[in-house]
Amino acid sequence: MPVTNKDRATSIIARCRKIAACTEVPGEITRRFLTRPMHDVHTLFRKWMEAAGMAVHVDAIGNIRGLLQSHVRNAPRIIIGSHLDTVPNAGAFDGILGVVLGIAVIEELQGRQLPFSVEVIGFSEEEGVRFSKPFLGSLAVMGRLNEETLQRKDQDGVSIVDAIANYGLDPTHLPDAVLSEDVFAYLEFHIEQGPILETEEAPLGIVEALVGQTRMQFIFDGQANHAGTTPMHLRHDAMAAAAKWIVAVEEYALSHEGLVATVGKLEVSPGAGNVIAGRVKASLDVRHAQDKTRHAAVTALIDSATSTAAERGIKITTHIELEQPAVPLDPHLTTLLHIAAAKTGFPNRRMTSGAGHDAMILAPTIPSAMLFLRSPRGLSHHPDEAVLPQDIEAAFATAMEFLAQLSDDKTKDGHA
Amino acid sequence: MPVTNKDRATSIIARCRKIAACTEVPGEITRRFLTRPMHDVHTLFRKWMEAAGMAVHVDAIGNIRGLLQSHVRNAPRIIIGSHLDTVPNAGAFDGILGVVLGIAVIEELQGRQLPFSVEVIGFSEEEGVRFSKPFLGSLAVMGRLNEETLQRKDQDGVSIVDAIANYGLDPTHLPDAVLSEDVFAYLEFHIEQGPILETEEAPLGIVEALVGQTRMQFIFDGQANHAGTTPMHLRHDAMAAAAKWIVAVEEYALSHEGLVATVGKLEVSPGAGNVIAGRVKASLDVRHAQDKTRHAAVTALIDSATSTAAERGIKITTHIELEQPAVPLDPHLTTLLHIAAAKTGFPNRRMTSGAGHDAMILAPTIPSAMLFLRSPRGLSHHPDEAVLPQDIEAAFATAMEFLAQLSDDKTKDGHA
Repeated sequence: MPVTNKDRATSIIARCRKIAACTEVPGEITRRFLTRPMHDVHTLFRKWMEAAGMAVHVDAIGNIRGLLQSHVRNAPRIIIGSHLDTVPNAGAFDGILGVVLGIAVIEELQGRQLPFSVEVIGFSEEEGVRFSKPFLGSLAVMGRLNEETLQRKDQDGVSIVDAIANYGLDPTHLPDAVLSEDVFAYLEFHIEQGPILETEEAPLGIVEALVGQTRMQFIFDGQANHAGTTPMHLRHDAMAAAAKWIVAVEEYALSHEGLVATVGKLEVSPGAGNVIAGRVKASLDVRHAQDKTRHAAVTALIDSATSTAAERGIKITTHIELEQPAVPLDPHLTTLLHIAAAKTGFPNRRMTSGAGHDAMILAPTIPSAMLFLRSPRGLSHHPDEAVLPQDIEAAFATAMEFLAQLSDDKTKDGHA
Repeated sequence: MPVTNKDRATSIIARCRKIAACTEVPGEITRRFLTRPMHDVHTLFRKWMEAAGMAVHVDAIGNIRGLLQSHVRNAPRIIIGSHLDTVPNAGAFDGILGVVLGIAVIEELQGRQLPFSVEVIGFSEEEGVRFSKPFLGSLAVMGRLNEETLQRKDQDGVSIVDAIANYGLDPTHLPDAVLSEDVFAYLEFHIEQGPILETEEAPLGIVEALVGQTRMQFIFDGQANHAGTTPMHLRHDAMAAAAKWIVAVEEYALSHEGLVATVGKLEVSPGAGNVIAGRVKASLDVRHAQDKTRHAAVTALIDSATSTAAERGIKITTHIELEQPAVPLDPHLTTLLHIAAAKTGFPNRRMTSGAGHDAMILAPTIPSAMLFLRSPRGLSHHPDEAVLPQDIEAAFATAMEFLAQLSDDKTKDGHA
């Protein structure tokens, strides 16, 4: 009896749940970079990959890598990848689903030959939890892990280099983790982690770009004072100024297509109900697929804070904490993915990714494509994170069709 | 050589500074209810009061009380009072100045007889720091310290009853602390603790009423979500809703004469820069001299929060934590005080007190008046809290004139 796509979906979900049991914290899913449960993750993936006929190894950063070699001499290589680690108290699909789907694709080939090799990579780190630095796995395969990064320490004072050695790997072998030169494409499956596909009743999203991001801190310095004895017109209320600015942030983002702007963190001092706020520290997170649009937004929002503060005799200080350019994905591969999805008949839409993914690290060098699966209730980084079996079927069918398109495509030849 | 008012002012400031040295925390002024340094405060005041010819005792709640008995048989009694305790890291004048000024008034009489007795009271507790309950001293003299209050515990688990006993006082004598029935008036001097007098270049304020106050908590329950992947139009951002409401709070208060409304405390969860706020807890403090105006404000601000939240699919919960009616002071005594201040020639203005004072506890039962002294930079509850020597001269001259007015007045007779 042949394996149906429905069977595949059931098996994929079961495997994600099995990996979810590998956790640092019993009763929840918490699996940081190179912690103990990662050994079990490696063992499971090695078993599944080898059963699918792949040559498997764990590289020096802890990425698990399975290669299905093409019979074609000097064949180029496509990478299918996503990550193995999680945030604290996570769901079962963020990251893992992409790796499990990659292996299912290999299984479905059942020895059928392609004109390119396929390497499935489970990146050991993407979330940035343990070392407050994301993308360690994909940075390693791009040869972009510098010495400064390797010396970063976790909460217990353990450096990345030490973590690698403690795990039983050899940091001197890191250069061997770099991708071979025959790689011509990167494909990543990932849950959307947002509500767009669900809202539009589409199981699949074809990612055209990963948004650029600016993270800032805004400090409003007013004058703390007695809430009863200070008349309204003599106040320098940092909270009132910050509030007016936050309203302006929301209005600006609402009126600019595709822009998101968020004030998610606010610290008020002295922070007593009967004392006018003297100081407010607010975060600002701005994202857009076009860097120009994002830069214009940041400028406008700084201006808005400055004028709102000036009206109240309040001082404004701003500080840029992160400035991440947008990363466009490969137009040709994205089109192939779009054609493949259309052929399967499942509704899909082109979209931008508002979150960062491993594709962000690979795409500037390697032609890359990403396929999003609908996130029920838009939930992720949450124990209730889910994915619908029929959406996995859609993604799986699209992946197989994409590989078929790619086999007929001359893209690969240019990179061989 | 006669003592000039300038000499008096210098001496009053020196005494306030001397009391300021009685502190729980070396290097700052922190003196809570019945803590060790209060013994030194009692000793100093006893010495000054006795030297001024007063009969002195400390009552069972720790109020120090000095009586200058009138020669007139069955003479009524006026109380001049303020408090001995401070907030943590306080200034040298909040409370203490009123008690020291009271003693200076007695000294100035130099045995000159009045048709009423004068009792100066230094209330042992007004700030509410140690037992999270203010006005313990004045509540005791009004017989309003109930058993529940007496069983309140401080951070170390010590009850008020125990604190009294530990200090060397006898809680069974609390009924003796209640004011004698011959009291016909209460007068309190206090620093303004706000910027109004300074802004209007007036040394003195004649308090007509102490504002009523509502303290509330507003909870905005939205949906925490990814700041990158959740488009603006699909958000339920608790922070954006709270901000819009805070702007409305400020606008409402600015457009209603005499009203103050403050959001001084805000807790945002989860409180990360890259996560849309799921929940915001905000404080609201509303004050006005007219209860009707305050109640209308509270209703309008609840309505405003509700409609702002509804626009965003956010749930609102409100909770009233304190509801304190306004306390009008005695119109006749207030007029006498105004006449006295006018006679001295120092600029003054009628005003409401935005903060609570011991007068709030006495005024509902005993005709009361309050005189404010200008607060440089509006500062209080701060080490830089100050008072100008010339403003003390003004207050002192006004107090002497007030007693002269009162001597000629028949008010006292009605209560004798």
